Amino acid sequence: MRIGTLGEFRFIERVKKRFPKQSNAVLSIGDDCAVLGFTRGRYLLVTSDMLIQDVHFDLKKVSPSRVGRKALAASLSDIAAMAGIPKYYVVSLAVPAGMPVAFLDDFYSGMIKLAKEYGVELIGGDTNRADVFICDITVIGETEKRSLARRDGAKTGDDIFVTGSLGGSIKGKQYDFTPRLREARILVRDFRIHSMIDISDGLASDLCHITDASGVGAVIYEARLPVSRDADSKYGALSDGEDYELLFTLPPGSDDTVLNRKLGLPVTKIGKVVQRRRGVKIVTSEGKKRRLEKSGFRHF
Amino acid sequence: MRIGTLGEFRFIERVKKRFPKQSNAVLSIGDDCAVLGFTRGRYLLVTSDMLIQDVHFDLKKVSPSRVGRKALAASLSDIAAMAGIPKYYVVSLAVPAGMPVAFLDDFYSGMIKLAKEYGVELIGGDTNRADVFICDITVIGETEKRSLARRDGAKTGDDIFVTGSLGGSIKGKQYDFTPRLREARILVRDFRIHSMIDISDGLASDLCHITDASGVGAVIYEARLPVSRDADSKYGALSDGEDYELLFTLPPGSDDTVLNRKLGLPVTKIGKVVQRRRGVKIVTSEGKKRRLEKSGFRHF
Repeated sequence: MRIGTLGEFRFIERVKKRFPKQSNAVLSIGDDCAVLGFTRGRYLLVTSDMLIQDVHFDLKKVSPSRVGRKALAASLSDIAAMAGIPKYYVVSLAVPAGMPVAFLDDFYSGMIKLAKEYGVELIGGDTNRADVFICDITVIGETEKRSLARRDGAKTGDDIFVTGSLGGSIKGKQYDFTPRLREARILVRDFRIHSMIDISDGLASDLCHITDASGVGAVIYEARLPVSRDADSKYGALSDGEDYELLFTLPPGSDDTVLNRKLGLPVTKIGKVVQRRRGVKIVTSEGKKRRLEKSGFRHF
Repeated sequence: MRIGTLGEFRFIERVKKRFPKQSNAVLSIGDDCAVLGFTRGRYLLVTSDMLIQDVHFDLKKVSPSRVGRKALAASLSDIAAMAGIPKYYVVSLAVPAGMPVAFLDDFYSGMIKLAKEYGVELIGGDTNRADVFICDITVIGETEKRSLARRDGAKTGDDIFVTGSLGGSIKGKQYDFTPRLREARILVRDFRIHSMIDISDGLASDLCHITDASGVGAVIYEARLPVSRDADSKYGALSDGEDYELLFTLPPGSDDTVLNRKLGLPVTKIGKVVQRRRGVKIVTSEGKKRRLEKSGFRHF
């Protein structure tokens, strides 16, 4: 069988089976970050993201500084998903020999600016030759043990919330999004977060990551989805990737106007966590209940 | 200017200047590992190595399991250079869609076997599509603060030692080398290591890394070089890369037979650390003193 046939998620499942979790890792393969019990009160968080020219970005269409910014921002979003504080990053690059030095300067400029904003420090990396430009960033962060947010804690009855708006990120937000680091810290400080993830694969897919990991079902309401004006349709809010918003669940009774105010950005209650046997469903704008597929949902 | 003209070391210098070391990092860009002061008594070590198909290896000539082994071993060697203990690793992959799953299984097999030998745990990674196979491994390790070996501690009068034999690693050792983790730990436990590095770029180049960082000079003796039988000439022991042996300095008077016995492998005294103004020299087999260039030395 070829990798293209197996697909990414089944590949990750395979790797997970071959590398059972050992002593010190609290969470490992398949989560947003690896979580390591490093000191008595704190966890160490580790996450990697690789960006490949002509797979993830087209240098004819996007400036090097935006690529550099995004490369770091995607990993910061993984740290945010677990309510961590990013501390350090390592950059491994593959660079075509003919690439202008000015390109790399610009690439680093985008990264530096974002890194400064969040107090993250570049500590090393590796530089190599290749035919295309590739960047792999590893971010190391930390969090108090009591503040860790994870995807497997959703409970039946929880309300489901999402920050910001969803869909159409391909029009620009995929590069210029704000990693929700500050918001995540406010959430774990002021609310009883049961589960959290960042939306990188699309709402439908990432909601299923929460329900699968938590052993629960969910119902969301199409009419409540905070559809971005960049989205081509409501469907985009479910299936478009790279929104990098936070998807989280709270015990019933939480008020989204309080959340809005505390976080200083729109937060929308989009549904409820239900029992596992009820599956993951969407109630369409026409009031019909449909099964939510990882790639969105089938209208008929 | 293009990257190919600037070269790797000048590029690293540029990056170092743009990212001055901040608060928590003890050592950062340009060393074998980043060293972070994470807890009171221990440092955290972080290192990354990227391997790219057709740049670093040719899948027509080498099995996936050997590539997998090497990908991890190269980072473990960086941990060894600082006398650290490797704990965790993260694997970011770029995989062509048409690659057989059996290839990846074999790749991971080579990695797993080595990881088990040294008790290193896979904790995460990222998987992507690309036209060629790329693997970026980040290893996280630790060491007691007092055990840290660094490249900048060489002192005038030190003897210079090297483990194993050098040169010709292209014939096989570049894949099957033993990262000198155990040996490094014995060295910091039983000897007063002043400086250490692993030989990845070649003895001449890595010796200059030690002398540059320490602000010293060095004299080595061609006749004493432990030339591997795989090396094409004595010159290969100076300039061939990927030996992954340890190069270190000890206060004068250390005996290489004691080192041999403690480490259980050949250790050779190859020269002495001298004052900075005397430069880095090699005494040839004919008794002539030559300047040692990073790429070896000029005979005439």
